[in-house]
Amino acid sequence: MIQTLDKSFIPVLQEKIDNLNKPKGSLGRLESLALQIGLIQHTLTPKLQHPCHILFGGDHGIEREGVSVSPREVTWQQMINFGRGGGGVNMFCRQHGFKLHVVDVGVDYDFDHERYPHIIDRKIAHGTRNFLHEPAMTQEEYERALAVGAEMVDKCHAEGCNVISFGEMGIANTSPSSIWMHLFLGIPLDKCVGAGAGLNNEGIKHKYEVLSKALAPRPPKGAAIRDKENTHNNNISEDRLISGWPPPSGDGGLLAYFGGYEMVAAIGGMLRAAEHRMIVLVDGFIMTACMLGASQIDRNVMEYAVFGHCGDESGHRLMLDAMGAEPLLSLGLRLGEGTGAICAYPILQSAVNMINEMDNFQHAEITKYF
Amino acid sequence: MIQTLDKSFIPVLQEKIDNLNKPKGSLGRLESLALQIGLIQHTLTPKLQHPCHILFGGDHGIEREGVSVSPREVTWQQMINFGRGGGGVNMFCRQHGFKLHVVDVGVDYDFDHERYPHIIDRKIAHGTRNFLHEPAMTQEEYERALAVGAEMVDKCHAEGCNVISFGEMGIANTSPSSIWMHLFLGIPLDKCVGAGAGLNNEGIKHKYEVLSKALAPRPPKGAAIRDKENTHNNNISEDRLISGWPPPSGDGGLLAYFGGYEMVAAIGGMLRAAEHRMIVLVDGFIMTACMLGASQIDRNVMEYAVFGHCGDESGHRLMLDAMGAEPLLSLGLRLGEGTGAICAYPILQSAVNMINEMDNFQHAEITKYF
Repeated sequence: MIQTLDKSFIPVLQEKIDNLNKPKGSLGRLESLALQIGLIQHTLTPKLQHPCHILFGGDHGIEREGVSVSPREVTWQQMINFGRGGGGVNMFCRQHGFKLHVVDVGVDYDFDHERYPHIIDRKIAHGTRNFLHEPAMTQEEYERALAVGAEMVDKCHAEGCNVISFGEMGIANTSPSSIWMHLFLGIPLDKCVGAGAGLNNEGIKHKYEVLSKALAPRPPKGAAIRDKENTHNNNISEDRLISGWPPPSGDGGLLAYFGGYEMVAAIGGMLRAAEHRMIVLVDGFIMTACMLGASQIDRNVMEYAVFGHCGDESGHRLMLDAMGAEPLLSLGLRLGEGTGAICAYPILQSAVNMINEMDNFQHAEITKYF
Repeated sequence: MIQTLDKSFIPVLQEKIDNLNKPKGSLGRLESLALQIGLIQHTLTPKLQHPCHILFGGDHGIEREGVSVSPREVTWQQMINFGRGGGGVNMFCRQHGFKLHVVDVGVDYDFDHERYPHIIDRKIAHGTRNFLHEPAMTQEEYERALAVGAEMVDKCHAEGCNVISFGEMGIANTSPSSIWMHLFLGIPLDKCVGAGAGLNNEGIKHKYEVLSKALAPRPPKGAAIRDKENTHNNNISEDRLISGWPPPSGDGGLLAYFGGYEMVAAIGGMLRAAEHRMIVLVDGFIMTACMLGASQIDRNVMEYAVFGHCGDESGHRLMLDAMGAEPLLSLGLRLGEGTGAICAYPILQSAVNMINEMDNFQHAEITKYF
């Protein structure tokens, strides 16, 4: 259960912030951030401790429909690369002191774990199924993915972490993100679909058509199964499918039907982090869609969310606005991996420094002005 | 003389950036920033060394017209407070490893320099004159202020600094900033005048009226001088005034007529920093106006400028757009002191880390995608 924040503490925190020696409100977003962090930690002297970044990797059946400019193999290649320290996420983790955990939840590749010990093996399957034809994952797989996320967060929490971000590596995962955005927020699909890692206009049109088809009324379950030679993962028996179409509203529902293992793991992680009253630093388009997904399970999770970055992906701003989220940065990043979240970390530090280190008017002997 | 950057080096730098293992352009603003920093330092492996922040303090004759919500005494009180380490600028300098230099160029207060050794004494006068009635400073004072800025930058440069930011403490200095913006960019005055540290609508209207009056056709110089009992600094002889109205276009001109000592010192500092090929990190509304002023003297200075923050001051976005500047942050800060510039520093570090530490496609053995 995620506790809602104690709003009765707001005036106490706000008074401290308003008495720092600056014109009232003049540190803008840092002030609202300090308020949120103070509420999450329920203290006038919040601290950021042992920041962690968990990067989940997984492949997507829908990738077979040509919805991404990048080939599937990039997922596993990058997962290996993160161990070399040369990825985008590595640099930023080093820069800001984040401990990085790289977790394979569903990458379509058999890693040599002796050679690549940095990859934590929690593989559920070699990629999801193709949701154009069938649910991406079963209910059992969905629950396992949630549990992987929770397990990783528990580990970080046990080490003293109170601020955590999540990232993903999963070619084609803007597609399920767009679908969730459309289904959970009621935003027209064409406004939810963008270029991903670099599709041109024709590519975006094709992606839109594939996703539209995936959302169209379906033939009954049996018929979909008969069509399975068109799908990538056809080694599943009919009884492992959680549902036909439409998916049930409870349980995994739309999250399991369209999601990636890495996305559901992130959702599980976000929910658990909020249970632990940790600050959840949210990255770009995909992680925002995961926070949206998490909020479908428990809306209180949003109170613990700090949105790091508004990316270039068309629709991200729309999604953030619809969620009432105010991102800290807008630097045109669209790399994924969680880079936008980690780059925003110094802003959190600034907010915490402000409330802890800035002098107040009385002590500084300054005429209070505002 | 400020050298223009060697544009023939762009393709070499761009090729390195495009071969880092990420979709082309996917690190957005970090990529353009790495390009600019690489050009400034003319290297494929740029470095940020010994960042310094110079904060100039000065008072303004125009403050006597009630154009600011804050009283004049706040300037000196805050200058003292910066020595206690409890100001906004102190926290952010500590957080990001900036060496802070606090310089009195024209504060209307006699500091006890034994008690406050952190304040570097380069006082030119106890505040500028009131430009509603006469030029804010003489040509000689203008040149001294420029020289103070250059001297401070030389000192930082000699210590190994290659990235520098500037801040200001000077109640009422959004007023001259608005006037420069209007005069140098041709933007209607009403779009240049905002709330400063917190004026209400009535206050903004009054400020606009005062500034309009200051820009209106004037009686000849002699008449203005006879009116000097209305001005604050009346201990100046007629021959020290650089000009009547309109000010000459050469020399100090409009910069001296309206500027603050702390603003002209910042201009001198920016120009000298660019001569040294240092990165000039530009803060909010007032420092952007100073960069605009500096560009009136030598337009090449803009090639060395990185704009840290778009503040809440009405008109700042307009000014940045008109200058072709793309700020890194937009956090609603309006504290001044240079806080917006310093908070943006980790983004510069990220850009430099990217170009130095990120692996390339060949070495990482990743299928090149875009």
